[in-house]
Amino acid sequence: MATGNLDKQKTIDLRKKHVGPSCKVFFSHDPIKIVRARGQYMYNEKDEKYLDCINNVAHVGHCHPDVVEAGAKQMELLNTNSRFLHDNLVLYAQRLQATLPEKLSVCYFVNSGSEANDLALRLAWQYTGHKDIITLENAYHGHVSSLIDISPYKFHQMAVAEPSQHVHVALSPDIYRGKYCEDHPDPATAYAENVKDIIEQAHKKGRKIAAFIAESLQSCGGQVIPPVGYFQKVAQHVRNAGGVFIADEVQVGFGRVGTHFWGFQLQGEDFVPDIVTMGKPIGNGHPMSCVITTREVAESFMSSGMEYFNTFGGNPVSCAIGLAVLDVIEKEDLQGNALHIGSYLTQLLDDLKKRHLLVGDVRGRGLFIGLDLVRNRDKRTPATAEAQDVIYRLKEQRILLSADGPHRNVLKFKPPMCFSREDAELVVEKIDQILTGNSGNSKL
Amino acid sequence: MATGNLDKQKTIDLRKKHVGPSCKVFFSHDPIKIVRARGQYMYNEKDEKYLDCINNVAHVGHCHPDVVEAGAKQMELLNTNSRFLHDNLVLYAQRLQATLPEKLSVCYFVNSGSEANDLALRLAWQYTGHKDIITLENAYHGHVSSLIDISPYKFHQMAVAEPSQHVHVALSPDIYRGKYCEDHPDPATAYAENVKDIIEQAHKKGRKIAAFIAESLQSCGGQVIPPVGYFQKVAQHVRNAGGVFIADEVQVGFGRVGTHFWGFQLQGEDFVPDIVTMGKPIGNGHPMSCVITTREVAESFMSSGMEYFNTFGGNPVSCAIGLAVLDVIEKEDLQGNALHIGSYLTQLLDDLKKRHLLVGDVRGRGLFIGLDLVRNRDKRTPATAEAQDVIYRLKEQRILLSADGPHRNVLKFKPPMCFSREDAELVVEKIDQILTGNSGNSKL
Repeated sequence: MATGNLDKQKTIDLRKKHVGPSCKVFFSHDPIKIVRARGQYMYNEKDEKYLDCINNVAHVGHCHPDVVEAGAKQMELLNTNSRFLHDNLVLYAQRLQATLPEKLSVCYFVNSGSEANDLALRLAWQYTGHKDIITLENAYHGHVSSLIDISPYKFHQMAVAEPSQHVHVALSPDIYRGKYCEDHPDPATAYAENVKDIIEQAHKKGRKIAAFIAESLQSCGGQVIPPVGYFQKVAQHVRNAGGVFIADEVQVGFGRVGTHFWGFQLQGEDFVPDIVTMGKPIGNGHPMSCVITTREVAESFMSSGMEYFNTFGGNPVSCAIGLAVLDVIEKEDLQGNALHIGSYLTQLLDDLKKRHLLVGDVRGRGLFIGLDLVRNRDKRTPATAEAQDVIYRLKEQRILLSADGPHRNVLKFKPPMCFSREDAELVVEKIDQILTGNSGNSKL
Repeated sequence: MATGNLDKQKTIDLRKKHVGPSCKVFFSHDPIKIVRARGQYMYNEKDEKYLDCINNVAHVGHCHPDVVEAGAKQMELLNTNSRFLHDNLVLYAQRLQATLPEKLSVCYFVNSGSEANDLALRLAWQYTGHKDIITLENAYHGHVSSLIDISPYKFHQMAVAEPSQHVHVALSPDIYRGKYCEDHPDPATAYAENVKDIIEQAHKKGRKIAAFIAESLQSCGGQVIPPVGYFQKVAQHVRNAGGVFIADEVQVGFGRVGTHFWGFQLQGEDFVPDIVTMGKPIGNGHPMSCVITTREVAESFMSSGMEYFNTFGGNPVSCAIGLAVLDVIEKEDLQGNALHIGSYLTQLLDDLKKRHLLVGDVRGRGLFIGLDLVRNRDKRTPATAEAQDVIYRLKEQRILLSADGPHRNVLKFKPPMCFSREDAELVVEKIDQILTGNSGNSKL
């Protein structure tokens, strides 16, 4: 089997010929060919090293030896479906459960964040008997058709962009660019009131709310950190309407936020979602994911009479890998590292903000940080082209960063959790140099 | 990490506590705990050997060393997303394409048969601009919400079982239990006419057909082999209505049918679907799958403006494993084995039919065979309880077989492709003994 042996142009040509053109590469005019990776570093076909600041899937570091070993050993022994009993499945379910409030005790293992969020919707529909879903502006929850419906981030890319009848889009609880900003006396309540209004409007039309779904911190939506207390208030409104609260932890879970293992826990000890979905980092790149819910919701799903079987979900290899990821997070205290390095990186970025007018906002928790670039600090005009420029120049310096959010102006840090002080210093130094060279922007 | 060390009862208890009750185990009153597997054999915690006649996922044999090695090596080197160029992705796409008619040239790599079929629907919707889907009676296409909608096999399990407005259920082209049987002069045309009628009815209501979807051979639906020519005629009706033909090869692809690599090829050289979906056997258990379509459909999907990104889909590990599976099928001539052993097994089962009245029909291609058990050969009354009895008794003999179809009376053979003459003889001998012991049934 040839690996990394094709001439780069040949790789590009074959990709054009045989891979769906909707699947875009990074830096499409001069894409990167990566042949190996380790920790927070990726290497191209010339063995040139890139610093990876964006890959939250390679959570415990690319190709972590413990994870690789666990996967390889189990692949050699057994890889079959969950129709048979296997200890990996139950031990993994138990370990995952232990990271969550006790009420969230029943797991469904699936293969991707999309499968997890789709199943979460099915659980909500069955449990509530209702159909309508409330989602946030700029939300992205996955690529299967039911999730495109609840992902304004995606359906706004369409020529005709109208939400389905059963989907309601609530204000993003964004205190930098949203309707209620940091100067508002109580943005959590104000944003939650918007959800309440939506519920009331829906009820007037005879519609019924099955669920509110949100990422615990919005990722593609622009690295948005909801104000504390928002989820509790939303949950109250939604539960009063007979609906459930789905916390999407696909991007932000597994210790990334530093102070807590799950993003929703930033809202406070008193908040417990009804359904939590997991994905990306869960298997350090292995295709797997999970939905965890309450016994009540699970029993109701079963009472429909319809079995749920997922061919690959919860196979012994995926579970061995999942267990190894949890072990590494613990053994290497990667949650602690996310907290410390994340704080340090945030501090360096705050310093950058003091020197460059282009930096409008620095926000984040742990190793999940956004740098919101603006042309005008008062008007907060998104500096989209400038953000793209920074990304491209960083690429020349072999640093991988990306820009996201509805205006594609938010530089998005979500590196492997083994990211170091030196890495943080390097990327900030390079951004500093780029912004300094780019003095036209700096003085806007 | 503990593996296979829990007392079996403890495994059962933990499973009850932490795994969704909708996820059923085989033989729920006395489930099997499997700790290792190799080839067509699985071993329980006491190292007792089971012959596996049902696992079409472990396609080239459980834990095939070549596949394990390819996966392990690539996991060690790099496992990242398709935003970067990688040779495995393009070489694998090229290899898969080479197994198909030239027109089917563009691949989308995803993580499960469900993701593949959902994407197939999205492609069809976008390409045709239409919404309606024609599916077959008893069809099963996956577990995400859009596919439950088109899977009568699933939605009939619900208390309230009505297809969605945009879903039309066509007659299953079953010449043993269907409307038009083997005594009909032209069942292919007759069943295709039913699809034509459905299209006409839909048009009268102002509805428009996006796609017809069918497994190339219906699996859960009862091991149904559509009459030759049916797909061509259906495709003509559907294309005349502006729709596309989706061939679901998730269960039956990759050489299982023996004479051909793909199930739809049994219909003849002149038949080419617009979209083909793959799954289960593609990675020998690794969570991966693929959708392949024409350049036209792919370009249309891109023209929507919506990007398609799948986090895990097409990662270098999945592609390395996919390539290794294709290598093994070729090197070990497993398609040839499916043809020869499949014919031999069919012949043994035909002999069984001569001796036992309970055997109503033996049908299949290659190593995809159904044994339809009946209480009355003239009325073809499904022998559901008897089929369950055979399955349970085979389990006592450490042979894994299952029963499926709308009446759960069809014994379903779809073993790993390395299944041998001796395996075939053993399972038939055991069934023979069970049916002989069970003389009450035999003489019905």
